[in-house]
Amino acid sequence: MSVQDSVVFALEIIGTVAFAASGALVGIRKSMDIFGVCVLGVITAVGGGAIRDVVMGVIPPNVFRDPVYALLAVAVSCLVFAAMCFRRRLSDERLGRLYETAMLLMDAVGLGIFTVVGVNAGIQQGYGGNAFLLIFTGTVTGVGGGLLRDVMAGVPPYIFVRHIYACASIAGAVLCTALGRVTGMTAAMFAGAAVVVLIRCLAARYRWNLPRIRVEESGADRG
Amino acid sequence: MSVQDSVVFALEIIGTVAFAASGALVGIRKSMDIFGVCVLGVITAVGGGAIRDVVMGVIPPNVFRDPVYALLAVAVSCLVFAAMCFRRRLSDERLGRLYETAMLLMDAVGLGIFTVVGVNAGIQQGYGGNAFLLIFTGTVTGVGGGLLRDVMAGVPPYIFVRHIYACASIAGAVLCTALGRVTGMTAAMFAGAAVVVLIRCLAARYRWNLPRIRVEESGADRG
Amino acid sequence: MSVQDSVVFALEIIGTVAFAASGALVGIRKSMDIFGVCVLGVITAVGGGAIRDVVMGVIPPNVFRDPVYALLAVAVSCLVFAAMCFRRRLSDERLGRLYETAMLLMDAVGLGIFTVVGVNAGIQQGYGGNAFLLIFTGTVTGVGGGLLRDVMAGVPPYIFVRHIYACASIAGAVLCTALGRVTGMTAAMFAGAAVVVLIRCLAARYRWNLPRIRVEESGADRG
Repeated sequence: MSVQDSVVFALEIIGTVAFAASGALVGIRKSMDIFGVCVLGVITAVGGGAIRDVVMGVIPPNVFRDPVYALLAVAVSCLVFAAMCFRRRLSDERLGRLYETAMLLMDAVGLGIFTVVGVNAGIQQGYGGNAFLLIFTGTVTGVGGGLLRDVMAGVPPYIFVRHIYACASIAGAVLCTALGRVTGMTAAMFAGAAVVVLIRCLAARYRWNLPRIRVEESGADRG
Repeated sequence: MSVQDSVVFALEIIGTVAFAASGALVGIRKSMDIFGVCVLGVITAVGGGAIRDVVMGVIPPNVFRDPVYALLAVAVSCLVFAAMCFRRRLSDERLGRLYETAMLLMDAVGLGIFTVVGVNAGIQQGYGGNAFLLIFTGTVTGVGGGLLRDVMAGVPPYIFVRHIYACASIAGAVLCTALGRVTGMTAAMFAGAAVVVLIRCLAARYRWNLPRIRVEESGADRG
Repeated sequence: MSVQDSVVFALEIIGTVAFAASGALVGIRKSMDIFGVCVLGVITAVGGGAIRDVVMGVIPPNVFRDPVYALLAVAVSCLVFAAMCFRRRLSDERLGRLYETAMLLMDAVGLGIFTVVGVNAGIQQGYGGNAFLLIFTGTVTGVGGGLLRDVMAGVPPYIFVRHIYACASIAGAVLCTALGRVTGMTAAMFAGAAVVVLIRCLAARYRWNLPRIRVEESGADRG
């Protein structure tokens, strides 16, 4: 295993842990049982990569050939479940804030890492010359798991309601794609992931908002 | 580019514009920010074709190899967003009716065009002899984008609640498949798309309904 | 057609009928029209197998090459619709209990049969040596259709809210995979499917629950 392979694998592991934890947190929030929590953790952790692999023609997707990612996601989901059991002793308000912070961090780290892992996977598959496809594979890997998580749990998807969510992923994918040609992928991946996490967290902290139109609920009903 | 290729490309462009606009309208309706609106516009415009391509083994799907469709969908979404900003000056009720009409037209045109484009794509891939598969590729291309749009935005999918929605698409796909063997694909595509738009709009205008069973909410809860 | 092929085909037919009926019941419950009911019946019946086939590289998926499954699902959906029209004469409470029981049975039978059909399909595709992948193809075939059904109909997915749902499928897939090496697939499939149906029904009857954490709704809002 070359140095770059080791770096990619380490990043995948960290991203899997982060996204599995975010999926488990959403599942617990929706009062799912331990098994539903694990399923949601696994879908969040491997969903983006699986969609990317199918779209790139890597079939069966890597996550199904190598059980380590799914098993890791199950283990993380169980750990989060156990930790949240313990946390019930905290007051409700503190639990709420803790939840929000943990969710933001886990989601930001997963988003950042899977974005650059996706760009790298596109290059490994020989699409290095097609910048549009690389940015697409990066973004779909980054946002795919969280989108599946939210749609399946029946909560409004982060990507549609949150400040600067997909923006952050696309910015990181563009940076990683561009830098990769100059500095090599290892440095480009760290830079890209860092930029995603930074934009995502700053946007949440300072409530950066993109423009939106408030439409009155009445008068535009879908009958 | 032959005449038929030009016709197909022109239809794809019109269908992309129409479906991207419908996605953007739903996003605005759900108070998404400009970025969420663009994401939903792109998913609606390219979703049906991407599912069809994966199912037919065209991997990566065409929409990811050729950025023109995704970029066009982003441009259309931004335009719709700008136009709706301007329209806020209208009274709420007029906005509501405007929204309903625009949504119906854009969705009908996208449904019609993508249905016949899907049939044609199936023939291009060598499935011309399997009428069942052609009707399927046509229908999935037609209804796929709108279904993804509605599920992701958390609104009841048109295909399940609307008058004669999937019916219209299937009728167009059948007509296009049957006519294609007689008149050639160019005429068959125009006829098929026109039939879809016609059925869809007439059904909405005259509130054609298929039978449904009203079940009382009480007593059949899913605990 | 060998004896085993006949058994697999018969199981597929029964599973298709059961899952199509469960999809039709959910559609009727959500007051969909006859066409929406059929679409949901078809998606439920063929969805899990289609996802499995795409992930295994069987493209186009079998269900699109052979129209018998989709046509059977349409026929079953229409029959269920007709039967439920008739049942309106029953009192609401009896209808509710009838609905719950029919839904449980259809879903359990579909879950059990498609789980073992999925394991068998994985072996047919030459993944017999990878137990992890076999259990995955079994489980995704079993739970996939029902998950799509629930997400598209906008109801909380069984897999996340119900007692021991995915558990039952995984247990059956593991048993089927393990037994298959000893007794041959025919016996292993019957045993695996029976175990799934048994666990699923017992869990519903005796309200077996896996642990879950009740989080207060206040204080942890997703703004």
